[in-house]
Amino acid sequence: MATLFYEPSTRTRLSFEAAMRRLGGEVLTTENAREFSSAAKGETLEDTIRTVEGYSDIIVLRHFESGAARRAADTANIPVINAGDGPGQHPTQALLDVYTIKREIGTLDGIKLGLVGDLANGRTVRSLAYLIAKYQNIKIYFVSPDVVKMKDDIKDYLNSKGVEWEESSDLLEVASKCDVIYQTRIQKERFGERIDLYEAARGKYIVDKKVLDVLPKHAVIMHPLPRLDEVTVEVDSDPRAAYFRQAKNGLYIRMALLKLLLVGNKSLDPCENAALFCMANVHVQILVHVT
Amino acid sequence: MATLFYEPSTRTRLSFEAAMRRLGGEVLTTENAREFSSAAKGETLEDTIRTVEGYSDIIVLRHFESGAARRAADTANIPVINAGDGPGQHPTQALLDVYTIKREIGTLDGIKLGLVGDLANGRTVRSLAYLIAKYQNIKIYFVSPDVVKMKDDIKDYLNSKGVEWEESSDLLEVASKCDVIYQTRIQKERFGERIDLYEAARGKYIVDKKVLDVLPKHAVIMHPLPRLDEVTVEVDSDPRAAYFRQAKNGLYIRMALLKLLLVGNKSLDPCENAALFCMANVHVQILVHVT
Amino acid sequence: MATLFYEPSTRTRLSFEAAMRRLGGEVLTTENAREFSSAAKGETLEDTIRTVEGYSDIIVLRHFESGAARRAADTANIPVINAGDGPGQHPTQALLDVYTIKREIGTLDGIKLGLVGDLANGRTVRSLAYLIAKYQNIKIYFVSPDVVKMKDDIKDYLNSKGVEWEESSDLLEVASKCDVIYQTRIQKERFGERIDLYEAARGKYIVDKKVLDVLPKHAVIMHPLPRLDEVTVEVDSDPRAAYFRQAKNGLYIRMALLKLLLVGNKSLDPCENAALFCMANVHVQILVHVT
Repeated sequence: MATLFYEPSTRTRLSFEAAMRRLGGEVLTTENAREFSSAAKGETLEDTIRTVEGYSDIIVLRHFESGAARRAADTANIPVINAGDGPGQHPTQALLDVYTIKREIGTLDGIKLGLVGDLANGRTVRSLAYLIAKYQNIKIYFVSPDVVKMKDDIKDYLNSKGVEWEESSDLLEVASKCDVIYQTRIQKERFGERIDLYEAARGKYIVDKKVLDVLPKHAVIMHPLPRLDEVTVEVDSDPRAAYFRQAKNGLYIRMALLKLLLVGNKSLDPCENAALFCMANVHVQILVHVT
Repeated sequence: MATLFYEPSTRTRLSFEAAMRRLGGEVLTTENAREFSSAAKGETLEDTIRTVEGYSDIIVLRHFESGAARRAADTANIPVINAGDGPGQHPTQALLDVYTIKREIGTLDGIKLGLVGDLANGRTVRSLAYLIAKYQNIKIYFVSPDVVKMKDDIKDYLNSKGVEWEESSDLLEVASKCDVIYQTRIQKERFGERIDLYEAARGKYIVDKKVLDVLPKHAVIMHPLPRLDEVTVEVDSDPRAAYFRQAKNGLYIRMALLKLLLVGNKSLDPCENAALFCMANVHVQILVHVT
Repeated sequence: MATLFYEPSTRTRLSFEAAMRRLGGEVLTTENAREFSSAAKGETLEDTIRTVEGYSDIIVLRHFESGAARRAADTANIPVINAGDGPGQHPTQALLDVYTIKREIGTLDGIKLGLVGDLANGRTVRSLAYLIAKYQNIKIYFVSPDVVKMKDDIKDYLNSKGVEWEESSDLLEVASKCDVIYQTRIQKERFGERIDLYEAARGKYIVDKKVLDVLPKHAVIMHPLPRLDEVTVEVDSDPRAAYFRQAKNGLYIRMALLKLLLVGNKSLDPCENAALFCMANVHVQILVHVT
């Protein structure tokens, strides 16, 4: 497996590499392909992919341009996994999110989900809304500052699938009736010089002790990480704080995905099959490209 | 194997690491030794080598200074492989080039070879001209902009070996009678502020559809990569476009080289022996240093 | 094993990674965690640790802040090894130093040790003075420019342990009666704009041929590396120059440490037990945190 990372990452790269090594495979790694590969000399992504596929059996790509994973997959004769392509998609994150909900709550059908924070720029909430729509009787609450509201493309998609959703500005009220509160970081880099807007947006919806007080006992707090202060550290010790377990699930889901792509699903053990539970319901084709 | 890379690289580092892992060995890697090793604190290359040889059985070094590999090899008590030393040499590239010609054309003796592009600064064409001179009845055509012509040291060397060569400004005519067209990138960084000269040189000799039209059926296009637009992408789908196969051969030649250096050549399997075919004709001593 | 390095390193990272691989384990590596991990997005060290512990069985951390290793260890549920925390401690260096003295001299009790160079800022000499105090009948000579003298906290500690020490400005006289001369680099970065003070301090105590001439036959020169010119290269060929052997001992001591932490000390082979000789006398708890 070759991990080509053109953007910083901790969780995604390390969990992919840990996954491959636990499966017994080897890893070729690039921590900073943007500056220390031939990309710095002007090589196209396509040429890099054609070269690297000669040295590996599967490629994991994080890139700063939306659509880069699609271009790479169209070029390669081996599987390419999209590990995030700029503001585009981050499909394995959505997979691990859905898997985490299943593990934590016990079911996906019928859940009530609060998506909180930067819903305009966060690729994880966008991918998650898209994926979760494939299950039954889902209800979604969007809670976000006005400047970073969920965009119409996702709302239209949910409407077309008959998924109920509503917008709210009352985080406590939403928390009191949800199974999952999915908090996200306000992305400073999207605000340019309007630091004032960023500061206002950033402090608006914080998951803290007050949220825990109204949150149902069986419910959980999720976050794709990294976080700044949109989930306060006092929340960490509550058993409903699921975000570090969520990060660990990235390992399992990526092990299952790699095994599926490299050897088919016959040899999956029960644990890995559990990780693939949700993948059975989704279109793997939208996530990766296998030729 | 420790890979110490003081300069950006995709192909060379990843193919060396893939080679070692396919042989069952382990890899210690530095993607950017210049900034993130003790070199940043002023340590000499010699001291770094003496330290790293304590942790590894073989060192692969790419450095920005000509002669760095020689200094490292003189210091170390384990084999040091030169993976490119600034404007100096890039011997394993020459090995894989010669191996690619053998695999693609079937022979090395008697071939006609067109070296195109930046012949003054390209260490790969310089190394290749030097190596190919060891075979019989070679004919070389140099096709390059005036500002980056092949230098006299190589011409003198070819003369001393009785190798026929000529300079030409007609790429199409050369392509019509060659077995191999070896195109190279014009290296912008060598032109300093004379961007006008660079732009003029860069557009002069392009391998495109017109070249394919006159190129013999059995012939091939090679390129050390990365490329910009000196080989157009329309060429990629032609079976005579050998440059991605050439990049992949880097894996085989490096596997063979590592095995030769670490366990001797007794245990090479037939495939690896094929990779070493051309090495039998050259002086391995000029490429690496084994103490 | 995950190696999280927020500062440049050659010896420490590569020897830890080589150690783990020789033990049969796998490595997740970050060469430059400061810029290319989520730390760049503002994630706290604690959050990074909680994530990475999900993907690994042991963490090796080098950080630029004093106390970072302690914070990481307090957070993690797996062992965290301090591989240097800013101007704080570098305990595995102290371990390999003590192990080197034992191997080179044959004993630790009763030795005479000259600590030379930057005694104020060098975390290795500070840690070594602390560790060596646990042995019997030690005598320490401090030889340093006035601006970087050993600080009172270590002197007070040695007094409380009854360890004899004195300060000297005569390197040759000290060298003539020591078993070990431990030279260190004057750290330019600590002098800010007072380059004149740095230059004066830097040239003051140099280990060269003259020091070798008076050094006892059985004695050794040690240095944590990297060095600039405070040990001249003419010294390298003398059998008493132990610094490259010392660097290699880092491999053995780290293998022993990893094995101890991961599988207990029952399965250590004789060689590894030798590496752990000195660790038996010290408090492993001060070095790492195991929960």
